[in-house]
Amino acid sequence: MVPPPRLPPFDEEVARRFLDTSVPTSGLPEFLGLRTVLVEPGRICIEMPVDPKLLTRFGNMHGGVLSALCDHALGLVCYPHMQAGQWAATTEFKVNLLAPVTSGTVTAEAQLIAMTRSTAVVRIDVTNDGRPCAVAQGTVLIMQPRPPKAAT
Amino acid sequence: MVPPPRLPPFDEEVARRFLDTSVPTSGLPEFLGLRTVLVEPGRICIEMPVDPKLLTRFGNMHGGVLSALCDHALGLVCYPHMQAGQWAATTEFKVNLLAPVTSGTVTAEAQLIAMTRSTAVVRIDVTNDGRPCAVAQGTVLIMQPRPPKAAT
Amino acid sequence: MVPPPRLPPFDEEVARRFLDTSVPTSGLPEFLGLRTVLVEPGRICIEMPVDPKLLTRFGNMHGGVLSALCDHALGLVCYPHMQAGQWAATTEFKVNLLAPVTSGTVTAEAQLIAMTRSTAVVRIDVTNDGRPCAVAQGTVLIMQPRPPKAAT
Amino acid sequence: MVPPPRLPPFDEEVARRFLDTSVPTSGLPEFLGLRTVLVEPGRICIEMPVDPKLLTRFGNMHGGVLSALCDHALGLVCYPHMQAGQWAATTEFKVNLLAPVTSGTVTAEAQLIAMTRSTAVVRIDVTNDGRPCAVAQGTVLIMQPRPPKAAT
Repeated sequence: MVPPPRLPPFDEEVARRFLDTSVPTSGLPEFLGLRTVLVEPGRICIEMPVDPKLLTRFGNMHGGVLSALCDHALGLVCYPHMQAGQWAATTEFKVNLLAPVTSGTVTAEAQLIAMTRSTAVVRIDVTNDGRPCAVAQGTVLIMQPRPPKAAT
Repeated sequence: MVPPPRLPPFDEEVARRFLDTSVPTSGLPEFLGLRTVLVEPGRICIEMPVDPKLLTRFGNMHGGVLSALCDHALGLVCYPHMQAGQWAATTEFKVNLLAPVTSGTVTAEAQLIAMTRSTAVVRIDVTNDGRPCAVAQGTVLIMQPRPPKAAT
Repeated sequence: MVPPPRLPPFDEEVARRFLDTSVPTSGLPEFLGLRTVLVEPGRICIEMPVDPKLLTRFGNMHGGVLSALCDHALGLVCYPHMQAGQWAATTEFKVNLLAPVTSGTVTAEAQLIAMTRSTAVVRIDVTNDGRPCAVAQGTVLIMQPRPPKAAT
Repeated sequence: MVPPPRLPPFDEEVARRFLDTSVPTSGLPEFLGLRTVLVEPGRICIEMPVDPKLLTRFGNMHGGVLSALCDHALGLVCYPHMQAGQWAATTEFKVNLLAPVTSGTVTAEAQLIAMTRSTAVVRIDVTNDGRPCAVAQGTVLIMQPRPPKAAT
């Protein structure tokens, strides 16, 4: 019912880089085991295997893992529509956790609802082996390139 | 202005366990380096040193780290007011990220706004070396003990 | 991509009543001029003409009008899936306002994302003459019938 | 624990105007019966008597009334810190409804958590005769003056 939003141009090269499995990840995305599996104009899918280290002692995936995944997807869906040097900063989001996750694979699908040169609103559907487990909605600020810091 | 909420009884023993630095953490809390530094009726403080591995390549703490910290604090503040065997499941929360974090220590202070035997509403203030960097608000469901699974 | 949720049975009679334009509204829905124009399993559409009295002195629709519309749609989409006497209480929601509204008609389309006998998670798309102007997401509690109060 | 935010200058004249009961209200604020009863740097209180017309047929205040009140307070707390001609546009907020409201007076207390020349983050505590009934958190964009439209 709702028309697709008008988006800034889509950069195929950025999309290809996100999907390139030979590029190593680091930090939080590496710890969570995130892998980008689809990049389209206004849409991105990220997969995460449910590693036992991500479960709490009650056997459910830590809510912080799912919210971190949502935050990650929020920013990532913007990049192919951004210019070189810009970066995406989540300013706010909200997540509803619908069902516990205990095994299998979690997939976050982020969609751009609205985007200008300076801001974007994004929605995210998270499923666990096809079953909805979280939905999120948030805002991203598109930040302008910063001058490089002097070497220290 | 707003009166403190009526809360279920506070269990000093649970509070002591949370503050016991000899208890090892694991999983996401260990990766993030979370440490509980204060537990009072209706209030908890969690500290996280800003480890370089938690920064993005733009030099800012990953938003997913701050949202995971908020999710963690949301649940933890409930436990001293819960009964043995119960567990706290975040059902939803919302976070506003106020300022980038690049170094120092991050402290999340969670406060119970309202709590019954089955649900709680929590607010969180996150500061970075005393400067506000995030605020959050969310809902926790208090889950009843589950029968232990058969050994496998 | 996300499968439609399993929902409790849909009551056609409730749907018909919501669409019956001969039933007068009152209170906030009357003031806002809300009219239910579509009721389907898991989905409802509510229209609101942009009356000048709903604009601020800056010529834009008051944000409170759009958030009240979202709150109203959140509850309404649940009723055809509820039992006689139950009532729907919004416990929380979040709204992003995407664009100012100055004239024409506003349409809120609410969709059930997940629903049990006691709770529901709902998403809302609000458009102004076909252009997205707000998105919302929230939780509804399904309350059990209350014994009638004694007459006073 | 959290230090008060640095705020743009406070305009006493704007504060006085908000408190002037001889200035008539209109539109949604008039329908809801909103009255500003306190204006301080970074803080505002708005009262609303619980008029029966604001209740649903289940005898509780319509959630849309409370969310509209929050939206209104979100913007209003910014004005004394804004410049002539600027206007405040809520871009997003989230509300948790804590308890049903059936009678008495509702008071919304909004506090600025962070504010720059272009944006503000605000928290709101809503009480009903002293009892917490809602909490909210949201973002306001400070919009620059628009050139007046030509007369039509």
